[in-house]
Amino acid sequence: MSKPEPNGTAAATGDGSLGGFDSVDKMLEAYVPADKLVHVQRVLHGWNQGRPVAAVPLPEAATSAAAEGGYDLQAYRFEAAPEQLRPPRVVRVGLVQNACPAPTTAPFAEQRQAIHDRVRQIIDAAGEAGVQVLCMQEAWHMPFAFCTREKSWCEFAESAEEGPSTRLCQELARKHGMVIVNPILERDDAHGGTIWNTAVVIGNNGNVIGKHRKNHIPRVGDFNESTYYMEGNTGHPVFETAFGKIGVNICYGRHHPMNWQGFGLNGAEIVFNPAATVGELSEPMWPIEARNAAIANSYYVGAINRVGTEHFPNAFTSGDGKPAHKDFGHFYGSSYFAAPDASRTPPLARHKDGLMIADLDLNLCQQLKDKWGFRMTARYDMYAEQLAAYVRHDYRPQVIKDPSL
Amino acid sequence: MSKPEPNGTAAATGDGSLGGFDSVDKMLEAYVPADKLVHVQRVLHGWNQGRPVAAVPLPEAATSAAAEGGYDLQAYRFEAAPEQLRPPRVVRVGLVQNACPAPTTAPFAEQRQAIHDRVRQIIDAAGEAGVQVLCMQEAWHMPFAFCTREKSWCEFAESAEEGPSTRLCQELARKHGMVIVNPILERDDAHGGTIWNTAVVIGNNGNVIGKHRKNHIPRVGDFNESTYYMEGNTGHPVFETAFGKIGVNICYGRHHPMNWQGFGLNGAEIVFNPAATVGELSEPMWPIEARNAAIANSYYVGAINRVGTEHFPNAFTSGDGKPAHKDFGHFYGSSYFAAPDASRTPPLARHKDGLMIADLDLNLCQQLKDKWGFRMTARYDMYAEQLAAYVRHDYRPQVIKDPSL
Repeated sequence: MSKPEPNGTAAATGDGSLGGFDSVDKMLEAYVPADKLVHVQRVLHGWNQGRPVAAVPLPEAATSAAAEGGYDLQAYRFEAAPEQLRPPRVVRVGLVQNACPAPTTAPFAEQRQAIHDRVRQIIDAAGEAGVQVLCMQEAWHMPFAFCTREKSWCEFAESAEEGPSTRLCQELARKHGMVIVNPILERDDAHGGTIWNTAVVIGNNGNVIGKHRKNHIPRVGDFNESTYYMEGNTGHPVFETAFGKIGVNICYGRHHPMNWQGFGLNGAEIVFNPAATVGELSEPMWPIEARNAAIANSYYVGAINRVGTEHFPNAFTSGDGKPAHKDFGHFYGSSYFAAPDASRTPPLARHKDGLMIADLDLNLCQQLKDKWGFRMTARYDMYAEQLAAYVRHDYRPQVIKDPSL
Repeated sequence: MSKPEPNGTAAATGDGSLGGFDSVDKMLEAYVPADKLVHVQRVLHGWNQGRPVAAVPLPEAATSAAAEGGYDLQAYRFEAAPEQLRPPRVVRVGLVQNACPAPTTAPFAEQRQAIHDRVRQIIDAAGEAGVQVLCMQEAWHMPFAFCTREKSWCEFAESAEEGPSTRLCQELARKHGMVIVNPILERDDAHGGTIWNTAVVIGNNGNVIGKHRKNHIPRVGDFNESTYYMEGNTGHPVFETAFGKIGVNICYGRHHPMNWQGFGLNGAEIVFNPAATVGELSEPMWPIEARNAAIANSYYVGAINRVGTEHFPNAFTSGDGKPAHKDFGHFYGSSYFAAPDASRTPPLARHKDGLMIADLDLNLCQQLKDKWGFRMTARYDMYAEQLAAYVRHDYRPQVIKDPSL
């Protein structure tokens, strides 16, 4: 197996003014003394709340595959308290972040094949490591070309049920007995070839359980996705798999707290957030939103971001008055897990492909619901009324004006 | 003016296993080299996004009052881009965190007077510093005695319109031309002496503009507040003051994203979160929730936490199987501002009274709404329907079960 030099993951492609470092965690580990770091980690990562997030040893086959493949591999464990009436329900979950190995100027078939080959390597390692549920980044099978507004990239769209990326995931799901969440650009031939941003959920027997379409579509920066597809029409499905109930909040939906909540109301224990987002725009939000969702909804979140810098054939402008250019900015990776008790793992690297693994005791979800009581104290009736009023065009905001002014 | 030794703010009272440090920020500044710290701060604090959070110089009268009074004083500035059709709308806003100076065994009148005297000092310094809108911590006029479940502490409840704490705030509002948010334990004599957890909003002319009652009441840890008062009945009012539109999300409401959203839908530009929360329970959540709210709702948040360790006369248990004890744990202060662009200030100290000041350009709220478009992409109609269905007792969650299992 040769070491690929993926497009945009080598140090040379860096992220310029954004610093080119691996992760904030690694910087803190390098400089903050251990007796102080424990306090920093308690406040910043929710560690040492009785349930430290511990590193987990992996089989040599997995670690050597990662070393040979040149990607980041990390593994942790979230623990729940023992219960008297239920055994622990520990699920091993994986997140994959990957750059596009071939340049965007290569023939499309070649680009897709290069990504498939790379991701197959990583998923095989996840299988060696015993991962039971795995999620890839948003539109993992193609460059994130929506910045260009060129419609030729629509060629990458494929059937959710029988496209080549779904077929690959089905093969790997069967091989490893693994549930795979497969976020793709979908072409919906049952509806005139409509395009959607879709996550296909494939069961551990290789069957397609169902799909979810991205609910919220951005219009910010170079995220010209509204040029390509519309708001999803699949609600907030939760998929009951062999290894737990999972939901998928795709990318920009993470900025919408009610989207996170929608999956929670339907019973999700793990919600994945497959994303593609760049450093200049969103990096300070990245450590916030997934964790807030995990806390507020008493479930685990697996947050996955694309990695690398993708260069496109034709220059485009970004609506910011700056000259036309050929790249979207740096996708900063940093995939991580967040738990309902406010703890989190460190992130994967900002510049490398990666596989993040965590053992999640799903019992923690109910334990946190019982501890904090957010569901019972949520007053959904009040908010149902407020929203029903708000969506009317003649909504009158509840404003109390100072009468003395 | 003598230096008081407030109950629980001296180093000696510390917070034991929680480390006794001033703030994570101060630790990072002490150990991380400046050329690395800039990257840490970019990711952790949203700085260097074109709008660094800059320290602001204050009048000598304010800084010397803080030095003499022995409390933490910090001041920052959040900037917005210049606009062509609107001038900047910069408001100077203050947050006060304070311990209880007298022991909880002192006569109640003496306890309240000691707090009034201390807070008067701090608000007078805020006036010298030109603060226009100020908010205090939750139930600032009394010890947070709800851990005890003893009803004698209800004596501290007072009229929202004419109680002694409201009177003091009215006097100081008139003196300094300042809007003051006054979170108190309210006794509602118009409804049979009912008790509420209430924020009274006092205008810069000293008049009571209105009040808001805490929407979500905790049942967690020693937060036995549901023993004392019920869920609020005032909706999500936004108060239109001389210096902007403000809302108040009281304490535990910060765990409820729809509560934050309620104030946003009604047009808030600044939402205060007056709180009282302790380190073992919530400290890793504290840097997350207010920032997530500021991002998701495109407004500023001023998050205020009580400070110090309060010891009560009679021992109580905490529902955790541990022996009866007399303290609630350490209220860790750490009050801060969060902005809609994901940036934040450093926190006030974890062990000292404090006054946090920030100049907020309110134009940033609309700028972030226009940039990110969260309001327009929010699909409130979908959520109004979901919640209307969910509140029915026979709601059927949207679950897709793997048919192969």
